[in-house]
Amino acid sequence: MNPKIKWLRNQLLSLKIEGIIVSNPVNVRYLTGLSEEGILIIAPKENIFITDSRYTESVNRKLTIDDEIVVYDSRNFSKYDYENIFTSSQNVGFEEKYVTYENYKNLLQTYKVNLIETEGIVENQRIIKDEDELENIKKACSITDKAFEYIIKNIKLGMTEKEVAFEIEKFMISNGADGLAFDSIVAFGENSSMPHAVPTERALNKGDIIQFDIGCKYNGYCSDMSRVVFAGEIKDEYKEVYEFVLKEQKMISNSLKDGINIKNVIKNAEADYKLKNYEIMHSFGHGVGLNIHELPILHSKKDNILKENSIIAIEPGVYIPGKFGIRIEDTFLVGRYNCENLTNSKKDYTVINLG
Amino acid sequence: MNPKIKWLRNQLLSLKIEGIIVSNPVNVRYLTGLSEEGILIIAPKENIFITDSRYTESVNRKLTIDDEIVVYDSRNFSKYDYENIFTSSQNVGFEEKYVTYENYKNLLQTYKVNLIETEGIVENQRIIKDEDELENIKKACSITDKAFEYIIKNIKLGMTEKEVAFEIEKFMISNGADGLAFDSIVAFGENSSMPHAVPTERALNKGDIIQFDIGCKYNGYCSDMSRVVFAGEIKDEYKEVYEFVLKEQKMISNSLKDGINIKNVIKNAEADYKLKNYEIMHSFGHGVGLNIHELPILHSKKDNILKENSIIAIEPGVYIPGKFGIRIEDTFLVGRYNCENLTNSKKDYTVINLG
Repeated sequence: MNPKIKWLRNQLLSLKIEGIIVSNPVNVRYLTGLSEEGILIIAPKENIFITDSRYTESVNRKLTIDDEIVVYDSRNFSKYDYENIFTSSQNVGFEEKYVTYENYKNLLQTYKVNLIETEGIVENQRIIKDEDELENIKKACSITDKAFEYIIKNIKLGMTEKEVAFEIEKFMISNGADGLAFDSIVAFGENSSMPHAVPTERALNKGDIIQFDIGCKYNGYCSDMSRVVFAGEIKDEYKEVYEFVLKEQKMISNSLKDGINIKNVIKNAEADYKLKNYEIMHSFGHGVGLNIHELPILHSKKDNILKENSIIAIEPGVYIPGKFGIRIEDTFLVGRYNCENLTNSKKDYTVINLG
Repeated sequence: MNPKIKWLRNQLLSLKIEGIIVSNPVNVRYLTGLSEEGILIIAPKENIFITDSRYTESVNRKLTIDDEIVVYDSRNFSKYDYENIFTSSQNVGFEEKYVTYENYKNLLQTYKVNLIETEGIVENQRIIKDEDELENIKKACSITDKAFEYIIKNIKLGMTEKEVAFEIEKFMISNGADGLAFDSIVAFGENSSMPHAVPTERALNKGDIIQFDIGCKYNGYCSDMSRVVFAGEIKDEYKEVYEFVLKEQKMISNSLKDGINIKNVIKNAEADYKLKNYEIMHSFGHGVGLNIHELPILHSKKDNILKENSIIAIEPGVYIPGKFGIRIEDTFLVGRYNCENLTNSKKDYTVINLG
């Protein structure tokens, strides 16, 4: 059996459930490698993937005998077939963070069992990456670095945010990425003051600050990086903020490693923001994997012990409404003794020569 | 007040609910024009949008006084502020098709009201498009036609499915699209036998069948079109299937108009498939709007009366496992007396000249 499903099966015992219905497609992909639509059911006697005729051919091409997953076509699956899956079971887990209220009621009707909340059991399992996952993330990070190097060499006065975003995407895909990890943020000048700016037809002018927040996917796994560069010149007002943000990112990344309580580190960062009277507009970071945002979240609300082989993006930002914003972000691999930076684009002041 | 919210408020009366919590971001966009994260609450006294500090600036740039929507930052919103929204209400609607089981429990705790299922009230409202929505969809369809014309002129032997898909995307975005409506399907030869093929590194060979399923977004609204063309030559085995699929699409589009029961038309199509012994691998079509798949669904399971100014994609397909597949699809505007085709790329046999 594939090791991820084996691990999950062992977890079921400690939750006192006899099986689990996995509906979240990202969790299905994590556990099986399949990106086709369908429901994965870990049942007492077997692992089942129920899909439909649009996908049966490609699913059967992908799975091997070692996966120990039985594939069914939902059209050939009757009411009784569904009821039989858990015929001797009472308590079965479901994904309360993914399943809609309507689907919850359908699951109750379909499987005739007690549905037990599983509190993100698979999402928690996904925090710690195995070797293959790390390789994919490293590859996504390396493509992102190259795309950034490419774009800062090729950006020109008069290009729009949309055009620049598109060049980044094109470069990433031509260099092996499956696609974007999220819609790229490319924000010029005053547009950078919005943390989630969407690229517009705004053209690049001399003196503009340029905020990038970019990432791609490789075999489904994401990278995430933000950089700020300057078109032709750096205004003094930017420098103080830039240095503060960079210092905070270093403080956080230098403090985080296996066994550290994230809460304490983020509390320090929050105190630094307070001293400077900067508003905290978003979290300081998040896990990265098959989803661009996954566990752990870097916040100070509760205790959260960081574990080796987690992947986290650390992204402090400061935003001056209507004027500008600066966010610096890298994807890190959490190690036993430190955090290893997987996105390595330079972070000293970058003034783009516009010819 | 904006007319879409006004219409929704009137609906609340007939559902005997005193307000509704709109969580689905597509429904929020439909009702407000906002694509920023947040919850829209239609409350007895006011319309409220609760967002967070990442979005407050851009939300306030977009809304005008005529929208009559009060914007709150969730950080400044206390437990009591939430409870006060529905202080004099008992029954409040929620979106059971969107809200997760976990969120349902959170809503109960937050608002202290009876939560009533609203059975897709906003999704149903979205079926009938207003003039602006129709304009956006027509624009998306026109860009899609142009992209198809461009790609069949520029496709060459040896190009991979991924490369062709990328050229289509690039063309669409350079010609005004916000982005893709869905990941383009470009499938060569045997890959076309999978209805949801994902572009691969497979290169184009002479004699290949080429399946396209492409669409873009314009101001958030989608288009959807599928075509099959032939690289250099048409094999005879393709012709019978091609003509069957085209005939079915014509039969369906000629039958559908305002007031028609979709069920009866689809039953006819299903009978035709049965006569030919072709397997039905997916539905015959779907609504198109802010989502690429929305209501109505073209199936024969239950009565469903089509309404004027709905937008539907009609997409019969036949798939011969391991060999090839053919799907032909257009986006149509449902009129009083007929269905108007909004995607107009030619459907006679197209053999691409490969030089």
